[in-house]
Amino acid sequence: MKLDENTEDIHQMIEQEAIKSIGMEKAGYLNLGKSRNDQVSTALRMESRGRIMDVCEALNTFQEVIIKLMNKFGNIIIPGYTHLQHAQPLPLFHHLQAYFDAIQRDIDRMMDGFVRVNASPMGATALAGTSIAIDRRYVASLLGFDGIVENSMDAVSSRDFVAELLSYLEIIMIDFGRLAEEVILWSSKEFGFIEIADEFAATSSIMPQKKNPVVAEMVRAKCGSVLGHLSAACSIMKGIPNSYNLDLQELTPHLWSAFSDTLASIKLMSSMLASIKFNNAAIKASIQDDGSTATELANYLVKHHDVPFRQAHTIVGELVRISIGKKIRLGDVVDSKLEKVSSNIIGKKIKIDKPVIEGVLDATKSLKLIRSIGGANLHFIRSQIRRDKVSLKRNRRFLGLKRRNLARADQMLLSQVQLIKGVRN
Amino acid sequence: MKLDENTEDIHQMIEQEAIKSIGMEKAGYLNLGKSRNDQVSTALRMESRGRIMDVCEALNTFQEVIIKLMNKFGNIIIPGYTHLQHAQPLPLFHHLQAYFDAIQRDIDRMMDGFVRVNASPMGATALAGTSIAIDRRYVASLLGFDGIVENSMDAVSSRDFVAELLSYLEIIMIDFGRLAEEVILWSSKEFGFIEIADEFAATSSIMPQKKNPVVAEMVRAKCGSVLGHLSAACSIMKGIPNSYNLDLQELTPHLWSAFSDTLASIKLMSSMLASIKFNNAAIKASIQDDGSTATELANYLVKHHDVPFRQAHTIVGELVRISIGKKIRLGDVVDSKLEKVSSNIIGKKIKIDKPVIEGVLDATKSLKLIRSIGGANLHFIRSQIRRDKVSLKRNRRFLGLKRRNLARADQMLLSQVQLIKGVRN
Amino acid sequence: MKLDENTEDIHQMIEQEAIKSIGMEKAGYLNLGKSRNDQVSTALRMESRGRIMDVCEALNTFQEVIIKLMNKFGNIIIPGYTHLQHAQPLPLFHHLQAYFDAIQRDIDRMMDGFVRVNASPMGATALAGTSIAIDRRYVASLLGFDGIVENSMDAVSSRDFVAELLSYLEIIMIDFGRLAEEVILWSSKEFGFIEIADEFAATSSIMPQKKNPVVAEMVRAKCGSVLGHLSAACSIMKGIPNSYNLDLQELTPHLWSAFSDTLASIKLMSSMLASIKFNNAAIKASIQDDGSTATELANYLVKHHDVPFRQAHTIVGELVRISIGKKIRLGDVVDSKLEKVSSNIIGKKIKIDKPVIEGVLDATKSLKLIRSIGGANLHFIRSQIRRDKVSLKRNRRFLGLKRRNLARADQMLLSQVQLIKGVRN
Amino acid sequence: MKLDENTEDIHQMIEQEAIKSIGMEKAGYLNLGKSRNDQVSTALRMESRGRIMDVCEALNTFQEVIIKLMNKFGNIIIPGYTHLQHAQPLPLFHHLQAYFDAIQRDIDRMMDGFVRVNASPMGATALAGTSIAIDRRYVASLLGFDGIVENSMDAVSSRDFVAELLSYLEIIMIDFGRLAEEVILWSSKEFGFIEIADEFAATSSIMPQKKNPVVAEMVRAKCGSVLGHLSAACSIMKGIPNSYNLDLQELTPHLWSAFSDTLASIKLMSSMLASIKFNNAAIKASIQDDGSTATELANYLVKHHDVPFRQAHTIVGELVRISIGKKIRLGDVVDSKLEKVSSNIIGKKIKIDKPVIEGVLDATKSLKLIRSIGGANLHFIRSQIRRDKVSLKRNRRFLGLKRRNLARADQMLLSQVQLIKGVRN
Repeated sequence: MKLDENTEDIHQMIEQEAIKSIGMEKAGYLNLGKSRNDQVSTALRMESRGRIMDVCEALNTFQEVIIKLMNKFGNIIIPGYTHLQHAQPLPLFHHLQAYFDAIQRDIDRMMDGFVRVNASPMGATALAGTSIAIDRRYVASLLGFDGIVENSMDAVSSRDFVAELLSYLEIIMIDFGRLAEEVILWSSKEFGFIEIADEFAATSSIMPQKKNPVVAEMVRAKCGSVLGHLSAACSIMKGIPNSYNLDLQELTPHLWSAFSDTLASIKLMSSMLASIKFNNAAIKASIQDDGSTATELANYLVKHHDVPFRQAHTIVGELVRISIGKKIRLGDVVDSKLEKVSSNIIGKKIKIDKPVIEGVLDATKSLKLIRSIGGANLHFIRSQIRRDKVSLKRNRRFLGLKRRNLARADQMLLSQVQLIKGVRN
Repeated sequence: MKLDENTEDIHQMIEQEAIKSIGMEKAGYLNLGKSRNDQVSTALRMESRGRIMDVCEALNTFQEVIIKLMNKFGNIIIPGYTHLQHAQPLPLFHHLQAYFDAIQRDIDRMMDGFVRVNASPMGATALAGTSIAIDRRYVASLLGFDGIVENSMDAVSSRDFVAELLSYLEIIMIDFGRLAEEVILWSSKEFGFIEIADEFAATSSIMPQKKNPVVAEMVRAKCGSVLGHLSAACSIMKGIPNSYNLDLQELTPHLWSAFSDTLASIKLMSSMLASIKFNNAAIKASIQDDGSTATELANYLVKHHDVPFRQAHTIVGELVRISIGKKIRLGDVVDSKLEKVSSNIIGKKIKIDKPVIEGVLDATKSLKLIRSIGGANLHFIRSQIRRDKVSLKRNRRFLGLKRRNLARADQMLLSQVQLIKGVRN
Repeated sequence: MKLDENTEDIHQMIEQEAIKSIGMEKAGYLNLGKSRNDQVSTALRMESRGRIMDVCEALNTFQEVIIKLMNKFGNIIIPGYTHLQHAQPLPLFHHLQAYFDAIQRDIDRMMDGFVRVNASPMGATALAGTSIAIDRRYVASLLGFDGIVENSMDAVSSRDFVAELLSYLEIIMIDFGRLAEEVILWSSKEFGFIEIADEFAATSSIMPQKKNPVVAEMVRAKCGSVLGHLSAACSIMKGIPNSYNLDLQELTPHLWSAFSDTLASIKLMSSMLASIKFNNAAIKASIQDDGSTATELANYLVKHHDVPFRQAHTIVGELVRISIGKKIRLGDVVDSKLEKVSSNIIGKKIKIDKPVIEGVLDATKSLKLIRSIGGANLHFIRSQIRRDKVSLKRNRRFLGLKRRNLARADQMLLSQVQLIKGVRN
Repeated sequence: MKLDENTEDIHQMIEQEAIKSIGMEKAGYLNLGKSRNDQVSTALRMESRGRIMDVCEALNTFQEVIIKLMNKFGNIIIPGYTHLQHAQPLPLFHHLQAYFDAIQRDIDRMMDGFVRVNASPMGATALAGTSIAIDRRYVASLLGFDGIVENSMDAVSSRDFVAELLSYLEIIMIDFGRLAEEVILWSSKEFGFIEIADEFAATSSIMPQKKNPVVAEMVRAKCGSVLGHLSAACSIMKGIPNSYNLDLQELTPHLWSAFSDTLASIKLMSSMLASIKFNNAAIKASIQDDGSTATELANYLVKHHDVPFRQAHTIVGELVRISIGKKIRLGDVVDSKLEKVSSNIIGKKIKIDKPVIEGVLDATKSLKLIRSIGGANLHFIRSQIRRDKVSLKRNRRFLGLKRRNLARADQMLLSQVQLIKGVRN
């Protein structure tokens, strides 16, 4: 079907084609009780809801990749960072779980948005409704909508859902951009924690050891691009009076670009992460004697020697300072100096057995002591994965339900079309 | 309480004061199983949830103002615009209802956000949890949270809720900015539809008739400012690795500024709108013979003369062209030319009685013909206002419930503090 | 030339084609002393400088349209607005001149940017320069650059010029967006100041009198889109370490989109404005007795009756208030009440002859009194247009010079290529 | 001076105070030929030009810090990165010089902006100029302006310079944000290249070895904040008709915030960088045998063995692959395998002496071979610093000139005020 130069727009062209094919007697009613304004908004919402589901499914697949990584590498102990400095050791699964949960919120937001998007503007006509006896709710159900945007002016002129979806997409991209940054850092020579598969890296024929993490860089950059689309949309809508203005048309390419960028980023990151290899030796070396279990030593003094936390904290701080100043391992300093230091600070000589000290200071062992819910204890990995799978199931159920509803509506619509054809022919 | 230069931060200072006041034996445990990271996130969420409720209450008040305006001016027939051109006449209540509904979605979004915000990060400590036997859920309930942010790393490093709230605030400002634009337009000399009360306009002593709609201009501008805060927040979070980084601290002023700007805008617009006067004569003159009921005439031909809509549309288009070309009122053209034009176009002479024609073309009368749900029929005003009041009630119930929950938690927290004091003293 | 699946990128493909065509002995040296990094930056700068000139030429054409409009309609007296309220009358040429000058600054900024863009990164290679004895300045001159980006790392990793150009494009769009807003307002039924030619408006077959100013709406919206591209670019560059990262590649589509949107907007606005018709009657009616010459009356009292400005202001304010309160024309109020009011306020009876009063209060006559440079006096129109033409000439000279330089460089490059072919064959 | 509740604004209050102090006879003329609109724009431009100079001076100081660092640490050989992967070795001075040059462009842009900002709107009055015989150019010179914004409407309504300055500030912040990112990376445990002085890092009493680079994180975040202010300003100006609207007032806080954030960031980064220590051992270890001189080996084959670059590239690529596969130092592989590999690939046995090979592959020695202008050869350091100092001098001369002009204007203004007082008293 080619666009005739003389037709005003796509709507008129469809009508003309229909008139040619089934005659004025039937097709001449095609635009009765309708206008471009409500049709445009309807089409935008129908396409949006489909893309919301695509994004949610891709996020779900990404969550599955996380679970696979947990199963495979979850018990590697890595440094946990604050300010890009070692803060506390963590099993990798705990780090991955943080992303799992952030992405679950991303899905939840998209689902909240779905509800607001999936309402029908059809029948609003230009902006005021119509004297034609149409049934807006029935039309809505044939088009797979869960309800209608009631007020006819609101129906044709509101695009809050565009800004809403764009902000959800940007938040997704922020989450993936942070992960991308970690992939870039971790695959640097200095970190050396991971290796990316060749197909997700750009290599140079002269420096084949140099694997440029281009997928991650692209995703990090796309976080900026989607912000651009969000900013554009908000600025476009700013200060536009009611009801429909052509400005709203300019929103559409921003929305589709943001959806495409986000969907591509999620999928690429899924495939790339699934292919990642961890370099245990480098990770282990990094965490060695980094002093990041010092707080646990203070906790030990609280729990087993009844020292108030502030004082325990001061004692351990002093021991760490000695360890750094004299370049002696912290464990050895604790063994040799704790009595003296504790005596100086709280007037009480404390002595801990060497194996106990080493147990508290050892990253792996110290992690076993963590008891708080949602904490970084390796023992939680199995139950965590079990609960993650429940989340996945719930997501899939929701998406399946929505997909089936839409398919059913399509079916109904088609049979109505057949019916009209039959009756009127 | 003055900040001692030597204390590291506010957290340490509080501890020092507590130690001074109730001794190391008790206060020395104040930071056990805690860290600045989880406390900062907790404080941010507690303040945010309060502000969410403030904004929702202000929006609710604004909806009440809308209802008052509907009661007072709702049946004035105004031009309905698309592209700032007259498209179809509307009763004012219908225009106001479009805003009512948009704002209801604004409230719904804030409530969706509330659920994600009102979860407790406490007990995440720096990022990995703690070996101290704390009860995170109990702490959460004492602080009025509905649950916890489970994963400890997620708890301290995620600020997706900040971007989410900022985007909701920006969407609110887009809605109010559009309304502000209409206030500015409608109070121009050329429109002359409304008059703003002096206290919401800047006047000049030499031109007292010139009322500058400064409140509306300010609100329109604030829509840009809140977009700035949203952009800033998204850009700040972009590409930051896990977990806590100081960058996150820079989000806070943007969030509070956006909340303040939005809250002030809603409140000012509420007061200003409540004081507005409509100039019926100017509105009536504007709508006179503007041809915006032409579509209803086509609908009439469809309904009463069985003309396919496309042909009815063509006939009416031709009549309007004659009316403009010859500068004759459309009603008179229809009366004198319809037979000839319809005969030319569809080979069928159609005749409509003059009073019927005038009825269809008259803005007020034609509006009575609108039948579609959510359409601009004045008869819908009572039932519409009734349903609006139900929405208001539902909003208030939700907010009341949340406020009571928080008050109860405060009570529990206080009694726990008393208990601890008693037991330990 | 089709892209072979096995070639790494466009650079390698070109080399392979060259090897096929002229052999390894010559083409094998194609990438000596070069890398993708410096080539990518070079290509970006070459394309950018061309687009800068395209935009400047379009702006220049737009300025020519302004001069045409000035010649045709410049002496129509229109209301000058502040806060969309009538403030002072203006000849239309004065309003247009404000745009002329704003656009001249837009051109100046682009020219400032041209200087920074038109420097060659070639020879920076990957990031550190090369041991090959290349002549970077000579290569630069062959490629039409005015100089080199000296530091090799800066050469491959800096994209400040992208953000700079995007911000200049956004400022252009702000200027055109403001003009677009005025076109939309002025073509509304309520203003009725202008009529847009059919080819720049969307009409409806059923409401042919309704001309939707879609071009202006599109331009207004594009101002938001270009802001989006600017925001995206700044956010993409944020926090990226040196030197080249793939993120920088994501800048390019934003830059080209912004250039295209801006160029199209300028050109469309030029054509649309050239076709505009003014409705003198509506403008004259709007300005009638709008009280916007009151300040000139105060000035008159200062100049001819030696009244301090503050007191003159108070006297006129009082007269205006009487005029509004009693619904009497201001001129008549001044005639009948000035003596009494001036006596009350400053204890001095002032009397002005009726024709003088009417002269001061009449928009056209009062404008003749304006003496300040750059003021809205119709007498300035000829000299103003003369000076505008000088600006146009200067712009064209600059652009012509740059175009010739580039053509000359192309010529040199081609002859060098021929030379190499000859010598080496 | 307290603000009286009854005065309309600051302008009126000043007049009232002046009337009280020197009488209506003189002060009553204070607002003759003036309005709030031109005064507001004038004040904004005067404050902006001062802040431009402050920022330029801070940038200049930062450039001085760079020179100090070059003198102190410039000849440390560091890895040069692309994609955060080692690409080519660099002397530190070369890396620093990239920043020096970027910042010089930042200064240049600010100076370009200064010219557009430093023009006087005074005498535009509300928007149309005045019949009072004022001398706009003389007033401009008394206020230290270099000229006037001629068209009176343009003078009161244009704020393009605000968007322009904000974009320049954002570009500065992008440059500093990239540097901040490098500081954060380089001070991580994994890189370990630098150590930040305690006063620019946050430490923990229990982990004193953990220095959180909070200043750098803050600067990185501020890059996002300034983007927010830029976005806000552009969006605020979008779609606002001429001339003055109150929206423009909302620009001001964004401009001042952006100036403050930028100025503080520059100053903090200057102080922090001045205090930085480099860890030579860690840097040396990182660069050891990283293969980043492979390209130089290919260049060597081109220069000394007449091998086309593409083939040289292929040969070296093969050698590197062997080196990695067999975990043998590249130098040894070249020594033992070059003959065979070159024979296989180009049918020509090439042999290079071991010391020559090691010279080419050694980072320090290979850098000495770089000949291209702006390349990373340590020998360029002295001449580079000499040229940098010339830039510094030029910047300082420009700023000094502007400062002196403003001081002279202040002097003139003051003596005029004295003169008026004398004459009129």
